[in-house]
Amino acid sequence: MSQHPEEGESSVNDETRAIEEVINAFMYYGKFGTEKILKTIQQMKLFSSSIDMISFFRNYPQDFQILVVNKNKEFVESMKQRIEHNHSILKMIANSASGMIGENHTKAFRIHQARRPTGEFLSKVLSTIRQICREWSSEGLPEREATFKPIIEELNSIFPTETERHNIRILVPGCGLGRLAHDLIEQGYTVQGNEFSYFMLFTSFFILNCCKEVDTFFEKPRVNFLFQVDQFTIYPYLFDKSNCWKSEDRLRGVTFPDKTLISSVTNRPNSFSMCAGDFLEIVKDTQFDAIVTAWFIDTANDIFKYIDAIYDALPENGIWINVGPLTWHFEDIAGEMSIELPYSDIMLRIRQKGFEIVSEKEIDSKYTVNRLSMLQNQFNCAYFYARKGGQKPQ
Amino acid sequence: MSQHPEEGESSVNDETRAIEEVINAFMYYGKFGTEKILKTIQQMKLFSSSIDMISFFRNYPQDFQILVVNKNKEFVESMKQRIEHNHSILKMIANSASGMIGENHTKAFRIHQARRPTGEFLSKVLSTIRQICREWSSEGLPEREATFKPIIEELNSIFPTETERHNIRILVPGCGLGRLAHDLIEQGYTVQGNEFSYFMLFTSFFILNCCKEVDTFFEKPRVNFLFQVDQFTIYPYLFDKSNCWKSEDRLRGVTFPDKTLISSVTNRPNSFSMCAGDFLEIVKDTQFDAIVTAWFIDTANDIFKYIDAIYDALPENGIWINVGPLTWHFEDIAGEMSIELPYSDIMLRIRQKGFEIVSEKEIDSKYTVNRLSMLQNQFNCAYFYARKGGQKPQ
Repeated sequence: MSQHPEEGESSVNDETRAIEEVINAFMYYGKFGTEKILKTIQQMKLFSSSIDMISFFRNYPQDFQILVVNKNKEFVESMKQRIEHNHSILKMIANSASGMIGENHTKAFRIHQARRPTGEFLSKVLSTIRQICREWSSEGLPEREATFKPIIEELNSIFPTETERHNIRILVPGCGLGRLAHDLIEQGYTVQGNEFSYFMLFTSFFILNCCKEVDTFFEKPRVNFLFQVDQFTIYPYLFDKSNCWKSEDRLRGVTFPDKTLISSVTNRPNSFSMCAGDFLEIVKDTQFDAIVTAWFIDTANDIFKYIDAIYDALPENGIWINVGPLTWHFEDIAGEMSIELPYSDIMLRIRQKGFEIVSEKEIDSKYTVNRLSMLQNQFNCAYFYARKGGQKPQ
Repeated sequence: MSQHPEEGESSVNDETRAIEEVINAFMYYGKFGTEKILKTIQQMKLFSSSIDMISFFRNYPQDFQILVVNKNKEFVESMKQRIEHNHSILKMIANSASGMIGENHTKAFRIHQARRPTGEFLSKVLSTIRQICREWSSEGLPEREATFKPIIEELNSIFPTETERHNIRILVPGCGLGRLAHDLIEQGYTVQGNEFSYFMLFTSFFILNCCKEVDTFFEKPRVNFLFQVDQFTIYPYLFDKSNCWKSEDRLRGVTFPDKTLISSVTNRPNSFSMCAGDFLEIVKDTQFDAIVTAWFIDTANDIFKYIDAIYDALPENGIWINVGPLTWHFEDIAGEMSIELPYSDIMLRIRQKGFEIVSEKEIDSKYTVNRLSMLQNQFNCAYFYARKGGQKPQ
């Protein structure tokens, strides 16, 4: 467990503390990066002292010695610049969250005490950066085409008339940085995104809304600010030391967003809302025409509860589209309940619950992969389209 | 750190302790498996108590209720049997090691006190089982074809006359369970395998030699015992709860060895030796005609030392063939030196050292993958064939 900051006032509640922990993790990135660089330099020194540098370099022509030394200096300098740059982006994200959580944000900053976050939280900061690439850069296009596109196409074939789609309410649980939700809005649907992680919520808020929130989150407010395509750059691969073909691969930047955001277009008949919190809580007493679970169902402690909640939140003939692997998030996590069922048992339960499986297929997709790495994690995802009640689809 | 057993006698040295730790890990497998099953049962109970079982099952026809209950019972029973079976194989491996390390084995068993191994050691037992599949079952054929076959073909095209190959001495560092070394023997070369891990050494000894060691390691000695193709079965996927399509996938067995072992053929002109220990130590003052590093160079604390050692152990025009990714084993391991260079910097150093790169390519390969899992780790491996001294190959 990470240490809690001192309680500043009696009104500091658990949520404020949770927010402060996330903000602390975002804000620590610069220092984390510096630690990483220092470690590399120390290792190089360890290496230098472990051998006789003079005899080592005797093998090289003098030009080469200068090249190696300069190349390393240049590389470290490039790393530093990019770490600072990433840090400034993460700071913007942490600051912009005020537009989303208001008073809690102010309180969190008031009690904030800079400290080293847990390894888990640091790794969440790094994966947030990777998630920006996956969802909002052209680098992530192959991953989005693999699993988001089939969902959108399926829905569009069910609802072919675009002008009527604003009546179709779709829920996207675990929507991450909101790209799938956003692209469904673009197709005309009325969409509610749902997300539990503040790392994702703050970052999606920054990407989706900051153009409307110009006065609050920039240190120097800019009027009429609008996101432009590829306006921002982020460096997601700086610390990918293993499985690297060449140093330059680690330095490359990725621009985002890769398209003009729909939030900059006003007067649409359909609406977009984002709901923070636990999926099982937010679906209570709410109805949707379709629920789209992409890379989501394996976040369940108890998959049966997810199935029940989805069933309850759909009307007769309501649509459930799912895609993703089953990398159970709570497997082997101490103190957490976790039912790691195989796909076939889940489908058995889904059918028994009262869904008809209209179609089922397998889709291969990567997830937040560095395409230049020697390691490429590939998922063989389960995709299905189901209807509540087993009536034939319209 | 795992606890050390009490010192039984003054002659118990570090090596005996190290061996005892590995034997303890092998011997703990059965208990580890039982722990895993108990956890699953507890989780199912937690699940049962968290909902009203009667209303839960009301949704199901009675036949189905019986099916579910029986199916689970049957599954747990199948798991238990297979865990016991794996345990008996691992016990055979631990026992057979006496033929390899003699007195140290006896001492290790004398001081042995059964206890829970570290997580790292338990995970090494599980990966040893996966390694058996990779190297010695037909399940591992695609992985061996991907990276072992190109090496063998390269060598055979350099040394086309099989009857002369016994004069060619090849070193295979980090040879794991010895399959690549074995297959090179089969082609007629004289081969020395080298391995540091006792998990690998004990298991390769069992596979490669136990047919010659029948009197010492079986509890009931069997005379004239010889390994037959597919004689043994092992269950490598029992604990793959995530990314599983159906329960039966976890239960499936893999048979080994997938071929008649060359060690059962006598009177060959070429010889096979296996050398336990640190690669950097064992290559000192030894010469080989070729060194084959497959999935090995990223085990280095200091890759420069590996390059120097390979250079020193080869004659002018000597051959170095390498294949594998760069998943640096000591990255982020506290207290360990680690230089995580990208491939291009390694190649720069190799050329500077005095190798000519004859050919270079990329090879895609998986590594100890469960082919029925939703997760398929794919490596984009670097392959090169180099010659010491930069003379054109013959």
